[in-house]
Amino acid sequence: MLRRMTIEQFAEALAAATPTPGGGSASAQAGAMAASLIQMVCDLTLGREQYRVHEAAVQPIRHRAEGLRRDLLALVDRDAQAYDAVVTALRLPKGTVAEKEARAAALERANLFAIEAPMAIADACASLMVMASELVEKGNVNAVSDVGTAALLAYAGLRGAVLSVRVNLKGVKDEASGARLRERVRRLEVDSEKLREEALAATCIRTNGR
Amino acid sequence: MLRRMTIEQFAEALAAATPTPGGGSASAQAGAMAASLIQMVCDLTLGREQYRVHEAAVQPIRHRAEGLRRDLLALVDRDAQAYDAVVTALRLPKGTVAEKEARAAALERANLFAIEAPMAIADACASLMVMASELVEKGNVNAVSDVGTAALLAYAGLRGAVLSVRVNLKGVKDEASGARLRERVRRLEVDSEKLREEALAATCIRTNGR
Repeated sequence: MLRRMTIEQFAEALAAATPTPGGGSASAQAGAMAASLIQMVCDLTLGREQYRVHEAAVQPIRHRAEGLRRDLLALVDRDAQAYDAVVTALRLPKGTVAEKEARAAALERANLFAIEAPMAIADACASLMVMASELVEKGNVNAVSDVGTAALLAYAGLRGAVLSVRVNLKGVKDEASGARLRERVRRLEVDSEKLREEALAATCIRTNGR
Repeated sequence: MLRRMTIEQFAEALAAATPTPGGGSASAQAGAMAASLIQMVCDLTLGREQYRVHEAAVQPIRHRAEGLRRDLLALVDRDAQAYDAVVTALRLPKGTVAEKEARAAALERANLFAIEAPMAIADACASLMVMASELVEKGNVNAVSDVGTAALLAYAGLRGAVLSVRVNLKGVKDEASGARLRERVRRLEVDSEKLREEALAATCIRTNGR
Protein backbone atom coordinates (compact mmCIF):
# COMPACT_ATOMS: atom_id res chain seq x y z
CA MET A 1 0.00 0.00 0.00
CA LEU A 2 1.24 3.45 -0.98
CA ARG A 3 0.19 5.00 2.33
CA ARG A 4 2.49 2.60 4.20
CA MET A 5 5.48 3.78 2.16
CA THR A 6 7.87 6.31 3.69
CA ILE A 7 7.79 9.87 2.38
CA GLU A 8 11.03 9.12 0.52
CA GLN A 9 9.77 5.86 -1.00
CA PHE A 10 6.53 7.50 -2.09
CA ALA A 11 8.47 10.28 -3.83
CA GLU A 12 10.59 7.60 -5.53
CA ALA A 13 7.45 5.71 -6.64
CA LEU A 14 5.89 8.92 -8.03
CA ALA A 15 9.11 9.67 -9.92
CA ALA A 16 9.22 6.22 -11.56
CA ALA A 17 8.15 6.06 -15.22
CA THR A 18 5.25 3.71 -14.43
CA PRO A 19 1.54 4.57 -14.90
CA THR A 20 0.88 4.69 -11.13
CA PRO A 21 1.18 6.32 -8.68
CA GLY A 22 0.70 9.63 -10.51
CA GLY A 23 -0.93 13.03 -10.13
CA GLY A 24 -4.12 11.65 -8.57
CA SER A 25 -2.36 9.95 -5.65
CA ALA A 26 -0.15 13.02 -5.15
CA SER A 27 -3.27 15.22 -5.04
CA ALA A 28 -4.84 12.94 -2.40
CA GLN A 29 -1.64 13.12 -0.33
CA ALA A 30 -1.64 16.94 -0.54
CA GLY A 31 -5.25 16.91 0.64
CA ALA A 32 -4.39 14.58 3.54
CA MET A 33 -1.69 17.05 4.67
CA ALA A 34 -4.25 19.88 4.48
CA ALA A 35 -6.64 17.89 6.68
CA SER A 36 -3.83 17.19 9.16
CA LEU A 37 -2.85 20.86 9.45
CA ILE A 38 -6.48 21.87 9.98
CA GLN A 39 -6.81 19.29 12.76
CA MET A 40 -3.60 20.60 14.37
CA VAL A 41 -4.81 24.20 14.38
CA CYS A 42 -8.19 23.15 15.81
CA ASP A 43 -6.39 21.43 18.69
CA LEU A 44 -4.25 24.54 19.24
CA THR A 45 -7.50 26.55 19.49
CA LEU A 46 -9.90 24.36 21.48
CA GLY A 47 -9.85 24.68 25.25
CA ARG A 48 -8.07 28.08 25.23
CA GLU A 49 -9.77 30.89 27.05
CA GLN A 50 -9.35 33.56 24.35
CA TYR A 51 -10.97 31.36 21.68
CA ARG A 52 -13.83 30.10 23.84
CA VAL A 53 -16.35 32.05 21.73
CA HIS A 54 -15.35 29.93 18.70
CA GLU A 55 -15.38 26.55 20.50
CA ALA A 56 -18.75 25.46 19.02
CA ALA A 57 -17.62 26.33 15.47
CA VAL A 58 -14.15 24.77 15.72
CA GLN A 59 -15.15 21.45 17.31
CA PRO A 60 -17.01 20.09 14.22
CA ILE A 61 -14.20 21.31 11.92
CA ARG A 62 -11.73 19.25 13.93
CA HIS A 63 -13.97 16.20 13.75
CA ARG A 64 -14.50 16.46 9.99
CA ALA A 65 -10.80 17.10 9.33
CA GLU A 66 -9.86 13.87 11.07
CA GLY A 67 -12.35 11.93 8.93
CA LEU A 68 -11.22 13.60 5.70
CA ARG A 69 -7.59 12.80 6.52
CA ARG A 70 -8.48 9.11 6.70
CA ASP A 71 -10.55 9.28 3.50
CA LEU A 72 -7.79 11.06 1.58
CA LEU A 73 -5.10 8.63 2.75
CA ALA A 74 -7.29 5.77 1.47
CA LEU A 75 -7.72 7.68 -1.82
CA VAL A 76 -3.91 7.81 -2.29
CA ASP A 77 -4.17 4.05 -2.88
CA ARG A 78 -7.62 3.97 -4.46
CA ASP A 79 -6.66 6.42 -7.23
CA ALA A 80 -3.67 4.26 -8.17
CA GLN A 81 -5.81 1.08 -8.19
CA ALA A 82 -8.40 2.79 -10.37
CA TYR A 83 -5.83 3.85 -12.93
CA ASP A 84 -4.21 0.40 -12.89
CA ALA A 85 -7.62 -1.03 -13.85
CA VAL A 86 -7.69 1.27 -16.91
CA VAL A 87 -4.22 0.10 -17.96
CA THR A 88 -5.29 -3.56 -17.50
CA ALA A 89 -8.40 -2.99 -19.63
CA LEU A 90 -6.34 -1.29 -22.35
CA ARG A 91 -4.16 -4.41 -22.56
CA LEU A 92 -7.08 -6.81 -23.14
CA PRO A 93 -7.04 -8.61 -26.50
CA LYS A 94 -9.00 -7.04 -29.37
CA GLY A 95 -8.62 -9.67 -32.09
CA THR A 96 -12.24 -10.82 -32.53
CA VAL A 97 -15.50 -8.88 -32.41
CA ALA A 98 -16.37 -10.55 -29.07
CA GLU A 99 -12.97 -9.56 -27.64
CA LYS A 100 -13.40 -5.99 -28.86
CA GLU A 101 -16.81 -5.74 -27.20
CA ALA A 102 -15.56 -7.23 -23.92
CA ARG A 103 -12.58 -4.85 -23.96
CA ALA A 104 -14.79 -1.80 -24.60
CA ALA A 105 -17.10 -2.77 -21.74
CA ALA A 106 -14.17 -3.36 -19.35
CA LEU A 107 -12.66 -0.03 -20.38
CA GLU A 108 -15.93 1.83 -19.80
CA ARG A 109 -16.22 0.34 -16.28
CA ALA A 110 -12.56 1.03 -15.46
CA ASN A 111 -12.90 4.56 -16.74
CA LEU A 112 -15.85 5.34 -14.49
CA PHE A 113 -13.85 4.02 -11.50
CA ALA A 114 -10.93 6.23 -12.66
CA ILE A 115 -13.24 9.25 -12.55
CA GLU A 116 -14.82 8.42 -9.19
CA ALA A 117 -11.51 8.34 -7.29
CA PRO A 118 -10.21 11.82 -8.30
CA MET A 119 -13.76 13.20 -8.00
CA ALA A 120 -13.82 12.01 -4.37
CA ILE A 121 -10.40 13.66 -3.84
CA ALA A 122 -11.66 16.93 -5.33
CA ASP A 123 -14.83 16.88 -3.19
CA ALA A 124 -12.86 16.21 0.01
CA CYS A 125 -10.42 19.02 -0.82
CA ALA A 126 -13.31 21.40 -1.56
CA SER A 127 -14.71 20.69 1.93
CA LEU A 128 -11.27 21.32 3.44
CA MET A 129 -11.03 24.68 1.66
CA VAL A 130 -14.36 25.78 3.15
CA MET A 131 -13.21 24.60 6.60
CA ALA A 132 -9.89 26.46 6.23
CA SER A 133 -11.77 29.66 5.34
CA GLU A 134 -13.68 29.47 8.60
CA LEU A 135 -10.64 28.46 10.67
CA VAL A 136 -8.47 31.26 9.33
CA GLU A 137 -10.83 33.67 11.13
CA LYS A 138 -11.54 31.61 14.25
CA GLY A 139 -8.38 29.56 14.86
CA ASN A 140 -5.37 30.29 17.07
CA VAL A 141 -3.68 33.37 15.57
CA ASN A 142 -0.21 31.90 16.20
CA ALA A 143 -0.98 29.08 13.76
CA VAL A 144 -2.74 31.10 11.06
CA SER A 145 0.03 30.45 8.52
CA ASP A 146 -0.61 26.70 8.95
CA VAL A 147 -4.28 27.27 8.06
CA GLY A 148 -3.20 29.26 4.99
CA THR A 149 -0.88 26.40 4.00
CA ALA A 150 -3.74 23.93 4.48
CA ALA A 151 -5.93 26.01 2.13
CA LEU A 152 -3.14 26.03 -0.49
CA LEU A 153 -2.57 22.26 -0.24
CA ALA A 154 -6.31 21.58 -0.48
CA TYR A 155 -6.46 23.90 -3.51
CA ALA A 156 -3.58 22.02 -5.22
CA GLY A 157 -5.23 18.69 -4.35
CA LEU A 158 -8.58 19.85 -5.75
CA ARG A 159 -7.26 21.29 -9.01
CA GLY A 160 -4.82 18.40 -9.51
CA ALA A 161 -7.62 15.84 -9.01
CA VAL A 162 -9.84 17.77 -11.44
CA LEU A 163 -7.10 17.54 -14.08
CA SER A 164 -7.28 13.72 -13.71
CA VAL A 165 -11.08 13.78 -13.91
CA ARG A 166 -10.96 15.89 -17.09
CA VAL A 167 -8.53 13.48 -18.78
CA ASN A 168 -10.67 10.45 -17.90
CA LEU A 169 -13.88 12.21 -18.96
CA LYS A 170 -12.72 11.84 -22.57
CA GLY A 171 -13.37 8.10 -22.28
CA VAL A 172 -17.00 8.53 -21.12
CA LYS A 173 -19.33 7.45 -23.93
CA ASP A 174 -22.61 8.57 -22.33
CA GLU A 175 -23.05 12.22 -23.30
CA ALA A 176 -25.48 13.16 -20.53
CA SER A 177 -23.22 11.82 -17.72
CA GLY A 178 -20.22 13.45 -19.40
CA ALA A 179 -21.94 16.84 -19.50
CA ARG A 180 -23.10 16.51 -15.89
CA LEU A 181 -19.60 15.65 -14.66
CA ARG A 182 -18.06 18.46 -16.72
CA GLU A 183 -20.43 20.98 -15.14
CA ARG A 184 -19.63 19.61 -11.66
CA VAL A 185 -15.86 20.01 -12.07
CA ARG A 186 -16.24 23.43 -13.68
CA ARG A 187 -18.09 24.58 -10.57
CA LEU A 188 -15.41 23.09 -8.31
CA GLU A 189 -12.74 24.97 -10.28
CA VAL A 190 -14.55 28.31 -10.06
CA ASP A 191 -15.26 27.93 -6.32
CA SER A 192 -11.67 26.85 -5.60
CA GLU A 193 -10.25 30.06 -7.10
CA LYS A 194 -12.52 32.22 -4.96
CA LEU A 195 -11.74 30.25 -1.78
CA ARG A 196 -7.98 30.29 -2.49
CA GLU A 197 -7.91 34.06 -2.95
CA GLU A 198 -10.03 34.66 0.15
CA ALA A 199 -7.97 32.30 2.33
CA LEU A 200 -4.68 33.89 1.24
CA ALA A 201 -5.99 37.43 1.83
CA ALA A 202 -7.45 36.52 5.25
CA THR A 203 -4.22 34.73 6.29
CA CYS A 204 -2.19 37.78 5.30
CA ILE A 205 -4.44 40.20 7.22
CA ARG A 206 -4.49 38.04 10.34
CA THR A 207 -0.72 37.39 10.25
CA ASN A 208 0.03 41.10 10.11
CA GLY A 209 -2.65 42.12 12.56
CA ARG A 210 -1.51 40.05 15.51
CA MET B 1 13.59 11.69 10.63
CA LEU B 2 10.30 12.86 9.16
CA ARG B 3 11.16 11.69 5.66
CA ARG B 4 11.56 8.12 6.94
CA MET B 5 8.01 8.17 8.32
CA THR B 6 5.24 6.52 6.34
CA ILE B 7 2.71 8.76 4.59
CA GLU B 8 0.22 7.84 7.32
CA GLN B 9 2.63 8.55 10.19
CA PHE B 10 3.64 11.88 8.67
CA ALA B 11 -0.03 12.91 8.39
CA GLU B 12 -0.47 11.89 12.04
CA ALA B 13 2.60 13.93 13.07
CA LEU B 14 1.33 17.00 11.16
CA ALA B 15 -2.08 16.65 12.84
CA ALA B 16 -0.58 16.55 16.35
CA ALA B 17 -0.87 19.74 18.41
CA THR B 18 2.92 20.12 18.65
CA PRO B 19 4.94 23.01 17.16
CA THR B 20 6.56 20.76 14.50
CA PRO B 21 6.13 19.42 11.92
CA GLY B 22 3.89 22.17 10.53
CA GLY B 23 3.14 24.08 7.36
CA GLY B 24 6.80 24.42 6.34
CA SER B 25 7.47 20.67 6.30
CA ALA B 26 4.16 20.04 4.51
CA SER B 27 5.13 22.64 1.88
CA ALA B 28 8.49 20.91 1.35
CA GLN B 29 6.72 17.56 0.96
CA ALA B 30 4.34 19.05 -1.64
CA GLY B 31 7.38 20.39 -3.51
CA ALA B 32 9.09 16.97 -3.37
CA MET B 33 5.98 15.40 -4.97
CA ALA B 34 6.06 18.08 -7.70
CA ALA B 35 9.73 17.27 -8.41
CA SER B 36 8.88 13.55 -8.56
CA LEU B 37 6.04 14.03 -11.05
CA ILE B 38 8.24 16.22 -13.26
CA GLN B 39 10.93 13.53 -13.27
CA MET B 40 8.32 10.88 -14.18
CA VAL B 41 7.00 12.89 -17.12
CA CYS B 42 10.56 13.55 -18.36
CA ASP B 43 11.21 9.80 -18.35
CA LEU B 44 7.95 9.19 -20.23
CA THR B 45 9.16 11.71 -22.85
CA LEU B 46 12.89 10.98 -23.30
CA GLY B 47 13.85 8.36 -25.88
CA ARG B 48 10.49 8.51 -27.73
CA GLU B 49 10.59 9.23 -31.41
CA GLN B 50 7.79 11.82 -31.49
CA TYR B 51 9.46 13.95 -28.76
CA ARG B 52 13.01 13.71 -30.14
CA VAL B 53 12.97 17.42 -31.03
CA HIS B 54 12.57 18.23 -27.28
CA GLU B 55 15.22 15.77 -26.01
CA ALA B 56 17.86 18.47 -25.40
CA ALA B 57 15.39 20.63 -23.43
CA VAL B 58 13.88 17.80 -21.37
CA GLN B 59 17.14 16.10 -20.32
CA PRO B 60 18.33 18.94 -18.03
CA ILE B 61 14.82 19.33 -16.55
CA ARG B 62 14.92 15.66 -15.56
CA HIS B 63 18.34 16.06 -14.00
CA ARG B 64 17.36 19.16 -12.00
CA ALA B 65 14.06 17.62 -10.85
CA GLU B 66 15.91 14.68 -9.35
CA GLY B 67 18.21 17.03 -7.42
CA LEU B 68 15.34 19.22 -6.24
CA ARG B 69 13.44 16.17 -5.01
CA ARG B 70 16.39 15.26 -2.78
CA ASP B 71 16.78 18.88 -1.57
CA LEU B 72 13.07 19.20 -0.75
CA LEU B 73 12.96 15.88 1.12
CA ALA B 74 15.88 17.11 3.25
CA LEU B 75 13.98 20.38 3.80
CA VAL B 76 10.98 18.47 5.22
CA ASP B 77 13.26 17.72 8.20
CA ARG B 78 15.31 20.92 8.13
CA ASP B 79 12.24 23.17 8.42
CA ALA B 80 11.07 21.26 11.51
CA GLN B 81 14.55 21.46 13.10
CA ALA B 82 14.70 25.19 12.42
CA TYR B 83 11.38 25.83 14.07
CA ASP B 84 12.29 23.60 17.01
CA ALA B 85 15.33 25.85 17.56
CA VAL B 86 13.02 28.89 17.81
CA VAL B 87 10.87 27.11 20.41
CA THR B 88 14.01 26.16 22.39
CA ALA B 89 15.24 29.76 22.33
CA LEU B 90 11.84 31.05 23.48
CA ARG B 91 12.08 28.77 26.51
CA LEU B 92 15.48 30.13 27.65
CA PRO B 93 15.46 31.88 31.06
CA LYS B 94 15.00 35.66 31.09
CA GLY B 95 15.45 36.45 34.78
CA THR B 96 18.63 38.54 34.72
CA VAL B 97 19.87 41.13 32.20
CA ALA B 98 22.58 38.67 31.04
CA GLU B 99 19.98 35.95 30.55
CA LYS B 100 17.75 38.32 28.63
CA GLU B 101 20.60 39.29 26.32
CA ALA B 102 21.63 35.66 25.74
CA ARG B 103 18.02 34.73 25.02
CA ALA B 104 17.56 37.60 22.54
CA ALA B 105 20.76 36.62 20.71
CA ALA B 106 19.75 32.93 20.57
CA LEU B 107 16.31 33.91 19.32
CA GLU B 108 17.73 36.13 16.57
CA ARG B 109 19.97 33.27 15.34
CA ALA B 110 17.16 30.71 15.52
CA ASN B 111 14.85 33.09 13.70
CA LEU B 112 17.24 33.54 10.79
CA PHE B 113 17.54 29.74 10.50
CA ALA B 114 13.72 29.54 10.59
CA ILE B 115 13.60 31.95 7.62
CA GLU B 116 16.34 30.22 5.60
CA ALA B 117 14.57 26.83 5.55
CA PRO B 118 11.21 27.98 4.11
CA MET B 119 13.03 30.40 1.82
CA ALA B 120 14.97 27.44 0.36
CA ILE B 121 11.65 25.56 -0.03
CA ALA B 122 10.11 28.55 -1.85
CA ASP B 123 13.13 28.92 -4.17
CA ALA B 124 13.13 25.21 -5.05
CA CYS B 125 9.38 25.30 -5.75
CA ALA B 126 9.80 28.42 -7.92
CA SER B 127 12.37 26.53 -10.03
CA LEU B 128 9.96 23.59 -10.32
CA MET B 129 7.18 25.90 -11.53
CA VAL B 130 9.42 27.23 -14.31
CA MET B 131 10.40 23.66 -15.25
CA ALA B 132 6.74 22.57 -15.28
CA SER B 133 5.88 25.47 -17.61
CA GLU B 134 8.43 24.24 -20.13
CA LEU B 135 7.48 20.57 -19.72
CA VAL B 136 3.77 21.20 -20.17
CA GLU B 137 4.59 22.19 -23.78
CA LYS B 138 7.36 19.67 -24.48
CA GLY B 139 6.53 16.59 -22.41
CA ASN B 140 4.58 13.46 -23.34
CA VAL B 141 1.01 14.59 -24.04
CA ASN B 142 -0.44 11.52 -22.28
CA ALA B 143 1.07 12.73 -19.00
CA VAL B 144 0.27 16.43 -19.33
CA SER B 145 -2.18 16.33 -16.38
CA ASP B 146 0.70 15.10 -14.19
CA VAL B 147 2.74 18.16 -15.21
CA GLY B 148 -0.22 20.39 -14.37
CA THR B 149 -0.51 18.68 -10.97
CA ALA B 150 3.24 19.20 -10.42
CA ALA B 151 2.81 22.94 -11.14
CA LEU B 152 -0.06 23.12 -8.62
CA LEU B 153 1.88 21.26 -5.91
CA ALA B 154 4.94 23.47 -6.47
CA TYR B 155 2.66 26.52 -6.28
CA ALA B 156 1.17 25.35 -2.96
CA GLY B 157 4.69 24.57 -1.66
CA LEU B 158 5.95 28.00 -2.66
CA ARG B 159 3.06 30.02 -1.25
CA GLY B 160 2.91 27.87 1.90
CA ALA B 161 6.65 28.34 2.53
CA VAL B 162 6.32 32.08 1.96
CA LEU B 163 3.61 32.22 4.64
CA SER B 164 6.17 30.74 7.07
CA VAL B 165 8.84 33.21 5.94
CA ARG B 166 6.45 36.13 6.46
CA VAL B 167 5.60 35.02 10.01
CA ASN B 168 9.27 34.62 10.94
CA LEU B 169 10.20 37.95 9.32
CA LYS B 170 8.43 39.67 12.20
CA GLY B 171 11.27 38.56 14.47
CA VAL B 172 14.02 40.08 12.28
CA LYS B 173 15.48 43.10 14.05
CA ASP B 174 17.69 44.36 11.22
CA GLU B 175 15.48 46.61 9.06
CA ALA B 176 17.57 46.42 5.89
CA SER B 177 17.64 42.59 5.82
CA GLY B 178 13.94 42.55 6.67
CA ALA B 179 13.09 44.84 3.75
CA ARG B 180 15.31 42.86 1.36
CA LEU B 181 13.67 39.55 2.33
CA ARG B 182 10.19 41.07 2.10
CA GLU B 183 10.88 42.28 -1.44
CA ARG B 184 12.24 38.83 -2.37
CA VAL B 185 9.13 36.98 -1.17
CA ARG B 186 6.83 39.56 -2.74
CA ARG B 187 8.46 38.87 -6.10
CA LEU B 188 8.14 35.09 -5.59
CA GLU B 189 4.43 35.55 -4.83
CA VAL B 190 3.79 37.65 -7.95
CA ASP B 191 5.74 35.29 -10.23
CA SER B 192 4.01 32.23 -8.76
CA GLU B 193 0.54 33.55 -9.66
CA LYS B 194 1.58 34.17 -13.27
CA LEU B 195 3.22 30.72 -13.58
CA ARG B 196 0.23 28.97 -11.98
CA GLU B 197 -2.27 30.57 -14.35
CA GLU B 198 -0.09 29.86 -17.39
CA ALA B 199 0.55 26.23 -16.41
CA LEU B 200 -3.17 25.58 -15.82
CA ALA B 201 -4.16 27.19 -19.11
CA ALA B 202 -1.47 25.32 -21.07
CA THR B 203 -2.40 22.00 -19.41
CA CYS B 204 -6.05 22.54 -20.31
CA ILE B 205 -5.27 23.39 -23.96
CA ARG B 206 -2.92 20.44 -24.38
CA THR B 207 -5.30 17.98 -22.65
CA ASN B 208 -8.14 18.94 -24.96
CA GLY B 209 -6.02 19.12 -28.08
CA ARG B 210 -4.69 15.59 -28.06
